[in-house]
Amino acid sequence: MPSYAVVVDVMLKPEILDPAGQAVLNALPSLGLPPVTTLRIGKHVELSVEAADEPAALEQATKMAEVLLANPVIEDFRVRLG
Amino acid sequence: MPSYAVVVDVMLKPEILDPAGQAVLNALPSLGLPPVTTLRIGKHVELSVEAADEPAALEQATKMAEVLLANPVIEDFRVRLG
Repeated sequence: MPSYAVVVDVMLKPEILDPAGQAVLNALPSLGLPPVTTLRIGKHVELSVEAADEPAALEQATKMAEVLLANPVIEDFRVRLG
Repeated sequence: MPSYAVVVDVMLKPEILDPAGQAVLNALPSLGLPPVTTLRIGKHVELSVEAADEPAALEQATKMAEVLLANPVIEDFRVRLG
């Protein structure tokens, strides 16, 4: 079966606080960097999936994201071909 | 100035071990999920930058990534409009 590169981006839901992102945002002025309006940090997962075709590869990655990569209570995820 | 959505993806360099990714990869069979060939986990940063134009927004995000978001010794990063 062919191998497909798939990317899963996992982000905290907008209503969930992101202390790591807030810390980076607050650190900008003291590093002499210009401010940004918003900044949120999530996970970026790159994987190679062996599947029959592209839809099958995306479906497999979506299943993985639902079960293992994202916490559906506090996180959203997006799956795309890499 | 207009606001631009910018995405910075930070990944460990290919030659650096990724224990978190390896742990996820090893967990797949016991969760009844099909195996994947490779899996690596990085950071996905979404930010809003106020800048004069798109190249200026990307340049500002690149500067941030170099100074603050990525560790250039062990990580690579990619910057793109979101």
